[in-house]
Amino acid sequence: MIELGPTRYGKARIRLVKVVRLPDRHVVRDLTVAVALEGDFAAAHTDGDQSLVVPTDTMKNTVYALAKDGLTGSIEAFGLTLGHHFLGFEQVERATISLQEHAWAPIATNGRPAPDAFIRQGDLTRTAVVSVGRDDATVEAGIEGLTVMKTAKSSFAGFPRDRYTTLKETQDRIMATKVAAAWRYADGGAGVDFDAAFDRVRGTMLTAFAEHFSPAVQTSIWIIGKAVLEAEPAIDTIHFALPNLHHWTYDLSPFGLENDREIFVATEEPHGLIEATVRRSA
Amino acid sequence: MIELGPTRYGKARIRLVKVVRLPDRHVVRDLTVAVALEGDFAAAHTDGDQSLVVPTDTMKNTVYALAKDGLTGSIEAFGLTLGHHFLGFEQVERATISLQEHAWAPIATNGRPAPDAFIRQGDLTRTAVVSVGRDDATVEAGIEGLTVMKTAKSSFAGFPRDRYTTLKETQDRIMATKVAAAWRYADGGAGVDFDAAFDRVRGTMLTAFAEHFSPAVQTSIWIIGKAVLEAEPAIDTIHFALPNLHHWTYDLSPFGLENDREIFVATEEPHGLIEATVRRSA
Amino acid sequence: MIELGPTRYGKARIRLVKVVRLPDRHVVRDLTVAVALEGDFAAAHTDGDQSLVVPTDTMKNTVYALAKDGLTGSIEAFGLTLGHHFLGFEQVERATISLQEHAWAPIATNGRPAPDAFIRQGDLTRTAVVSVGRDDATVEAGIEGLTVMKTAKSSFAGFPRDRYTTLKETQDRIMATKVAAAWRYADGGAGVDFDAAFDRVRGTMLTAFAEHFSPAVQTSIWIIGKAVLEAEPAIDTIHFALPNLHHWTYDLSPFGLENDREIFVATEEPHGLIEATVRRSA
Amino acid sequence: MIELGPTRYGKARIRLVKVVRLPDRHVVRDLTVAVALEGDFAAAHTDGDQSLVVPTDTMKNTVYALAKDGLTGSIEAFGLTLGHHFLGFEQVERATISLQEHAWAPIATNGRPAPDAFIRQGDLTRTAVVSVGRDDATVEAGIEGLTVMKTAKSSFAGFPRDRYTTLKETQDRIMATKVAAAWRYADGGAGVDFDAAFDRVRGTMLTAFAEHFSPAVQTSIWIIGKAVLEAEPAIDTIHFALPNLHHWTYDLSPFGLENDREIFVATEEPHGLIEATVRRSA
Repeated sequence: MIELGPTRYGKARIRLVKVVRLPDRHVVRDLTVAVALEGDFAAAHTDGDQSLVVPTDTMKNTVYALAKDGLTGSIEAFGLTLGHHFLGFEQVERATISLQEHAWAPIATNGRPAPDAFIRQGDLTRTAVVSVGRDDATVEAGIEGLTVMKTAKSSFAGFPRDRYTTLKETQDRIMATKVAAAWRYADGGAGVDFDAAFDRVRGTMLTAFAEHFSPAVQTSIWIIGKAVLEAEPAIDTIHFALPNLHHWTYDLSPFGLENDREIFVATEEPHGLIEATVRRSA
Repeated sequence: MIELGPTRYGKARIRLVKVVRLPDRHVVRDLTVAVALEGDFAAAHTDGDQSLVVPTDTMKNTVYALAKDGLTGSIEAFGLTLGHHFLGFEQVERATISLQEHAWAPIATNGRPAPDAFIRQGDLTRTAVVSVGRDDATVEAGIEGLTVMKTAKSSFAGFPRDRYTTLKETQDRIMATKVAAAWRYADGGAGVDFDAAFDRVRGTMLTAFAEHFSPAVQTSIWIIGKAVLEAEPAIDTIHFALPNLHHWTYDLSPFGLENDREIFVATEEPHGLIEATVRRSA
Repeated sequence: MIELGPTRYGKARIRLVKVVRLPDRHVVRDLTVAVALEGDFAAAHTDGDQSLVVPTDTMKNTVYALAKDGLTGSIEAFGLTLGHHFLGFEQVERATISLQEHAWAPIATNGRPAPDAFIRQGDLTRTAVVSVGRDDATVEAGIEGLTVMKTAKSSFAGFPRDRYTTLKETQDRIMATKVAAAWRYADGGAGVDFDAAFDRVRGTMLTAFAEHFSPAVQTSIWIIGKAVLEAEPAIDTIHFALPNLHHWTYDLSPFGLENDREIFVATEEPHGLIEATVRRSA
Repeated sequence: MIELGPTRYGKARIRLVKVVRLPDRHVVRDLTVAVALEGDFAAAHTDGDQSLVVPTDTMKNTVYALAKDGLTGSIEAFGLTLGHHFLGFEQVERATISLQEHAWAPIATNGRPAPDAFIRQGDLTRTAVVSVGRDDATVEAGIEGLTVMKTAKSSFAGFPRDRYTTLKETQDRIMATKVAAAWRYADGGAGVDFDAAFDRVRGTMLTAFAEHFSPAVQTSIWIIGKAVLEAEPAIDTIHFALPNLHHWTYDLSPFGLENDREIFVATEEPHGLIEATVRRSA
């Protein structure tokens, strides 16, 4: 017998910009939103019956319409608003809202921020995944595209060697990565100021990244993850997926030149990829 | 108390080309491989102790070295070879090998295939994910980047309407998608001819896609997935993630022109995204 | 004194799909079009006067509207139609239409082509740039994204050496490239069957690529370019930009393995880039 | 007769990172470099004779080797160093060096910049193209990827209408663009402090962008370009290619909501593309 397993469906890459026109200045909100629903949708698959299938076009309209009055704070809050809205359809058991926010800062002109001109900040994207079910809600926040580098306090040594090992041990290497991190708030984020928490987590992560000695990317994840959990009681777990963006010392010896950790080839292919979760124990 | 949760690490985007030099012609194998290991690696995180951490550089070397004698058949078989190799480290509990194969076909010259010149086939990438543990092995195969379109036999109607619904019902629309499908072989693929099975699955999928009437992408997944499972007893489950790449009828009425399903705007942003699993019931 | 230099403006990335509904089968045309106009537009810059500025939104509408009756043959012909249309504005001195066509082939079901289901061919994009002025028209056609490889009959030796040269000479290497070629038809393409010519050029290029011995990418361009010009009297010049997508022999000697042109690392960064024009002399 | 037309060749996407280890802090230089040579290379094409062809692999080695002592200031200066080096080959008539610099800023920890930890600035890439011939040198500098938006002081009206025009006039729209600008220094940049000049140009561009009223992107280019030329006597010409990244007001009226320039769809496909040069007259 053949049966239908788990399903979900929705709309992805909904690009939404909201301009908030305050008396003295504007604020730009720039979001990419995805909606995914789970629930009583088997008949759409097996019987071609769309009578319960909220069109993904309706989801898109809803995101724009609810943004007018509902996007007034954090993306986490807007995700909760959207999630609860879609639970208004009784066939929906779970609504998952994924959001990215692309930051724009006022352009500085003569030392003052322009009220109505902005520059997109390319150094990170803030993310959130809000999942609302009939009996629960989870709020995950995160960072994408935060590319950082340590030019000191990074080593890699003491690893096992087999017949396929040619890597030399190093006490001083470049460590570079593009941080993708996501953390979950306890209790569905009840009572959390998501904007303030995001800023603090970002700051904690950067400071820990800068200050620690890294014997391996694995250790860095643990140190940074622990720093975040220690600083933010509202977070109960944090996940990292860190590529190791290798910078290889270029061999200048054929040219009679010494290269003492000075000239590197930056590569992205292949790269190491280290994933781990740091969490509070039960 | 803060603790380490699940971890894994490895090397991604290992780009490997093998030229098999047969007496009368060459064969090109073009793979992108990723290795990920799980096991006794907590000390690397919490104590900075790398004594059990097989370097990802060693993984890379291993992939190239084992390709010499071990890449003689399907990517699934090569994945199993790699997976079992990494289990040779006793600290490894699970090795997951992800492979993509990019197809190259001989260039036809004067109606004959050239023995040593090739053209890359861009219409699909074959994939496999092989996961080998101490007591089990799973083999998943798949397709990425297969972009297909139906210009008839596709409708979308009968869906519920709420205050945010503006979509019109249609009995005849374009349906286009970029197929991402992955299927799992029963019994870790024991006895399966993976190359032949892949070709048959691809053929079954394309034929089913072409021939069926689609009242929704959801239904298409069910019909195509069922066709695959019915044709391939060795497969016990198949998963699809199908973007709905909308083609909107362009409004030509302001120009005094009729547009009877003839002129469309192709868009990718936003897109629907329909995901479902079809499987054999226990 | 500060003045305005050359200007042009237009609309880019207009995505157009046309379904031609023949009695027994459909045909899919899938184009990306860009329009650029030059002419009497200085006042728009220096005086903020838009009275002569055809909106780019109008260009977009025009592409879709003219596609209904005007896109019945080659993209070159459609480009000429569009170009001449925009010259209808007397402030326009030159209209340049850039077109890409993405090929879709009927899906084969039980050995027969489906009448209304298609698979996108990913192995090349056909291009055209049509430039229509008050007194002239030029038609350039081209190919993008044709990725090809020679596993024999390719060497690189005899090059000069200086203190920064470490490359070894080789009599047998892999040569791989992603062909970007564009050729210009004489007399604005008058009398040319552009579709047939494109197919012949593609065939000539692939055959020449497969059959020739390549002492360098430079020589390959000359041989292939000459073959095209010799076969197609209507073409007066052809330009190639060929990346040299290096495939480096992986050093397996640390593992006690020989690697006789068998196992390679495919790389794209950095790559050689060879550009040249082959043309009829005056 | 068939002949060889213009040629050039070189190495592209050379990824170079240099760590400058000052006593109290590190500085990261992160460049992508391309080298292209023109000269007496016809025999490589037509005769397969590589005796004058400096290998692109040698170019790559040279970039890394010369970076050790030669990359101490601006990318323009390094480009000139590289260009003059390659003119040391007598068969070379012109060397063109294209450089991108990706900025890294020290991570701030407790209000102080970390000496050895950095965050990549994603909001712009600085570029330079240095072309050195036997009798001349030109230095072009530029910016890529600077994405900016005006939420006020932007209109588009007074344009001509034809049968294909549906666009409404607007006195208040969002204008957003990703600036690609390149400017040429007079006299090959003799005596110019390229780093200081770049910073001033960037500042002038952003201030002009923020402060001016824009009746069209065309006018913005003129205003910003003129501001740059007026502020920087060493620059004799500046070129802009500005996409018009449309933000369309979302129609909320079907949902009983007013949308007074508040909720927008951000799109990139299609986009306007406005190109112009502003220069000093002779």
